[in-house]
Amino acid sequence: MATSVQAAQHRLVDRGRLLVSCHDRPGLIAAVSRFLAEHGANIVDSDQHSTGSRTNLFFMRVEFDLPDLEARLTDLQTKFASVAALFAMEWRMALAKYPKRLAIFVSREEHCLLELLWQQRAGDLYAEVAVVVSNHEDLRGMVEALGVPFECVLVTPDAKAEAEARQQAILKGRADVVVLARYMQILSHDFISEWPNRIINIHHSFLPAFVGAKPYDQAYRRGVKLIGATAHYVTEELDAGPIIEQDVARVDHRQGVDDLRRMGRHIERIVLARAVAWHAEDRILVHGNKTVVFA
Amino acid sequence: MATSVQAAQHRLVDRGRLLVSCHDRPGLIAAVSRFLAEHGANIVDSDQHSTGSRTNLFFMRVEFDLPDLEARLTDLQTKFASVAALFAMEWRMALAKYPKRLAIFVSREEHCLLELLWQQRAGDLYAEVAVVVSNHEDLRGMVEALGVPFECVLVTPDAKAEAEARQQAILKGRADVVVLARYMQILSHDFISEWPNRIINIHHSFLPAFVGAKPYDQAYRRGVKLIGATAHYVTEELDAGPIIEQDVARVDHRQGVDDLRRMGRHIERIVLARAVAWHAEDRILVHGNKTVVFA
Amino acid sequence: MATSVQAAQHRLVDRGRLLVSCHDRPGLIAAVSRFLAEHGANIVDSDQHSTGSRTNLFFMRVEFDLPDLEARLTDLQTKFASVAALFAMEWRMALAKYPKRLAIFVSREEHCLLELLWQQRAGDLYAEVAVVVSNHEDLRGMVEALGVPFECVLVTPDAKAEAEARQQAILKGRADVVVLARYMQILSHDFISEWPNRIINIHHSFLPAFVGAKPYDQAYRRGVKLIGATAHYVTEELDAGPIIEQDVARVDHRQGVDDLRRMGRHIERIVLARAVAWHAEDRILVHGNKTVVFA
Amino acid sequence: MATSVQAAQHRLVDRGRLLVSCHDRPGLIAAVSRFLAEHGANIVDSDQHSTGSRTNLFFMRVEFDLPDLEARLTDLQTKFASVAALFAMEWRMALAKYPKRLAIFVSREEHCLLELLWQQRAGDLYAEVAVVVSNHEDLRGMVEALGVPFECVLVTPDAKAEAEARQQAILKGRADVVVLARYMQILSHDFISEWPNRIINIHHSFLPAFVGAKPYDQAYRRGVKLIGATAHYVTEELDAGPIIEQDVARVDHRQGVDDLRRMGRHIERIVLARAVAWHAEDRILVHGNKTVVFA
Repeated sequence: MATSVQAAQHRLVDRGRLLVSCHDRPGLIAAVSRFLAEHGANIVDSDQHSTGSRTNLFFMRVEFDLPDLEARLTDLQTKFASVAALFAMEWRMALAKYPKRLAIFVSREEHCLLELLWQQRAGDLYAEVAVVVSNHEDLRGMVEALGVPFECVLVTPDAKAEAEARQQAILKGRADVVVLARYMQILSHDFISEWPNRIINIHHSFLPAFVGAKPYDQAYRRGVKLIGATAHYVTEELDAGPIIEQDVARVDHRQGVDDLRRMGRHIERIVLARAVAWHAEDRILVHGNKTVVFA
Repeated sequence: MATSVQAAQHRLVDRGRLLVSCHDRPGLIAAVSRFLAEHGANIVDSDQHSTGSRTNLFFMRVEFDLPDLEARLTDLQTKFASVAALFAMEWRMALAKYPKRLAIFVSREEHCLLELLWQQRAGDLYAEVAVVVSNHEDLRGMVEALGVPFECVLVTPDAKAEAEARQQAILKGRADVVVLARYMQILSHDFISEWPNRIINIHHSFLPAFVGAKPYDQAYRRGVKLIGATAHYVTEELDAGPIIEQDVARVDHRQGVDDLRRMGRHIERIVLARAVAWHAEDRILVHGNKTVVFA
Repeated sequence: MATSVQAAQHRLVDRGRLLVSCHDRPGLIAAVSRFLAEHGANIVDSDQHSTGSRTNLFFMRVEFDLPDLEARLTDLQTKFASVAALFAMEWRMALAKYPKRLAIFVSREEHCLLELLWQQRAGDLYAEVAVVVSNHEDLRGMVEALGVPFECVLVTPDAKAEAEARQQAILKGRADVVVLARYMQILSHDFISEWPNRIINIHHSFLPAFVGAKPYDQAYRRGVKLIGATAHYVTEELDAGPIIEQDVARVDHRQGVDDLRRMGRHIERIVLARAVAWHAEDRILVHGNKTVVFA
Repeated sequence: MATSVQAAQHRLVDRGRLLVSCHDRPGLIAAVSRFLAEHGANIVDSDQHSTGSRTNLFFMRVEFDLPDLEARLTDLQTKFASVAALFAMEWRMALAKYPKRLAIFVSREEHCLLELLWQQRAGDLYAEVAVVVSNHEDLRGMVEALGVPFECVLVTPDAKAEAEARQQAILKGRADVVVLARYMQILSHDFISEWPNRIINIHHSFLPAFVGAKPYDQAYRRGVKLIGATAHYVTEELDAGPIIEQDVARVDHRQGVDDLRRMGRHIERIVLARAVAWHAEDRILVHGNKTVVFA
């Protein structure tokens, strides 16, 4: 709730985050950390990853505190640009205190949506729920009771483009990331290309097992002993985008398909909530079809 | 080792196991338990499972103690046959004290083989390792040092049938179950059909994800956040037989393919050892392509 | 929500549950299953446990379907009493269709309460939330918005007996089980003795580690690598009652006390929800200070 | 075996490790990374941790590659000393290619010892087993068959000091770390003080639950639903040293004390092997009674 977000904002008031991707070369960490030290920043957390000799990519995430950061940010960015240029870095530097704004898409099943709303409320998820968008009216009452805007956009096969245009209008200037919290419509390539690595979906299986529809039915028929869920960024190929997080639970012969669905709901909401929190805290870097998660 | 097996044999001296599969009908449990009570058996453990209304199958496993069981077994089986006939049961009743005889097939990687040998030695796996069969000589010294017979049967593409004939000759009258403990040859349909639901394989992925060759390479490329292993009965369709057990371990961006292989070795040996122990204790019933495991 | 409970009630309309505890003797399972078969019941699920030679106790739980069970229950109970007498059984036979009525006690932290309300709403927890009782007003709005009665009973050191009298009056005839969902007051021995094995508490540690106050602070100071939660029945000795369920999550040096609390909230709500569901489905038998959970 | 260790040595030929502890101050990471960059080192892996405002401690572990490191190490250490002096660092810089030399102490139970020997053999544990020391002769044959020296030192209550003197003589100049792999004797304070943070013990419970003798009996009596194991550095207070790693497994009412012991063996060997591997790779820093593990 407001209070938790305010408490976190206070703690994060002078906190900055710097994310870097580039080809690996000696001296990268030294260059970044020297730059920050010289400008008076104290590194609070720092993570690096090199993919090693073949692909030879370097990823870095630094959290730092710097007095009066907000006022100095533009200047700092300008100066860091020349360091970045030496190493041909892709990078971004941002204030931590402004929570990411989520647009949560949902159909009829409420469990993933509720988990996000509750974690946000409890201060466990540092983000703002800007709007909930659904293709059904079912969850309006519940969402609005929590003081969160709810928009219903019906989606019909004939008028999908119009529906997506309305959705885009709702999101415009209002959301930083789209979360598909059991949203049962497939987004068009056009929609997806507007939000590169900024649409998070929860798939109700341990991908790449059971791609496509009715994964719990598939899992039941195959007789697996673990069921899972996968949170991933949405790309044009269905269920094939970069995986952010996965988890599983143990099942046995006693569980029918309905039991798998019920147990699956618990895994889905936990896995999606983790993925959204990591995105909200700028902990995820994407390269090719994979993620580096500095959790 | 001998001592542990002997201790277990002593404990199991009058222990019997009864396994039943049939269509579900009222009175099944009553009929079985009454039969056992009337013949002086004490039920030590009893498990049932019904698949419910559609398929309506019934499975039951009972462990019981009955004084002087070995002498009375044939008579008991004859008498139970008439109870079984009333319900059209498939069933078997066996002495628990005779350990199952394992034939372990292995290629060059020792970890799964060692886990089985060690667990057997420690008394954690109640079974006898009748023979280790390999298509390489590499592990002979290690196996024979533990007092276990080792047979090397080279397998070449041109002479696969001859090789399998030699393997079958080695197994004949000597083994109750074949364990493929990282055996990298594909068995022929003829071989498989000789050992229905009695060949256990360990596949180094969370099936049905990553069927076929090099699953850890596949997992690495897909960027999964969990890797797994699957123990299953071998059927004619590759990697598609009834799953007995699965487990997973968490990985992240820092692990390369070699790390996945190393971590995978731990999951593989644990999963295979569990599956073999359950088989050895008659805890697994197969129906269609699925297992009921009364663990 | 109503719909889920109604659907479950329909499925459970003729479902009965029989729970039995006694000294182990041959013929027990036969006697129970024969009785049920002779009266036309079909056993849907059956679990037994014997503690073995020293203590030699026997526990059994049977779910069965019997047409028109509600009308026939009293008669069936009367007849079963003579079977039970032969074996000196403690037993109870009940209709499954009537959901257990929960009284949830809570102080200020909402996470455990919310999990129970949401699972009940989703149909994952087959129970009725009769009333929420708190020693603070904080959660009234949230609870009443979900249509659940909320009673605030202030508890002061000087007037604890009066407060408990008011609580007992609220519960009288209205609740079957008391759930302490992060209720930060210690109940008196008198209160506890009124609800034997019917008060479930969630303790925020892996008991018996970190008994008493501030377990996350204790865990942080000790530097454990896993934190946990424990659901148990409340007895007169603090944090020492029969354990129903426990779970843990992995932590490392990066987590401070606040992080442990935040992560702990997730474990607490999952562990408590499992324990309450098992109690609601009559899956728990208590002997001495331990539980048999037929999950 | 030799081959795996040689392969790892080749890979690690120019690899160095630098470990640093000090009070946190701005510029620490910059100073260390600049020093390494200026001397031509490439940082392969880098981890930091700050304990935050109250205790304000800083820990850092860097793995780096530097051509011809072995020849240049002394010079590099001398030069780094002046950087370290500026920040009052405790530090050490070492060659990664020389495996740590383990002295494994064991009594009669072989499972933890075997796991370490096998992992070392498989190349999963980069270390050398210098000697196995036991107070019994039981495991001599098995150890010597693997080509590992075995020393039996009987320990009697009357002659404990003499026994420890013999043990110390065996270890002198030959071992870097002592691993108590189910060694059932308590070491004296004198012995412990000779090996500060270099004796690793496996305790067969989830500490701090069930300190002392017979933890599985204690766990059984308490009716816990998870059992665990804890690897920790040995300090003068029994079972109270800094925890390195812990893990648990699920149990239920069906398991007796013997089952807990059997299941516990699997957890013990996995937990101990992880702890020893982390120590062998210089991944553990100790402060007060806690560990920072850069795993």
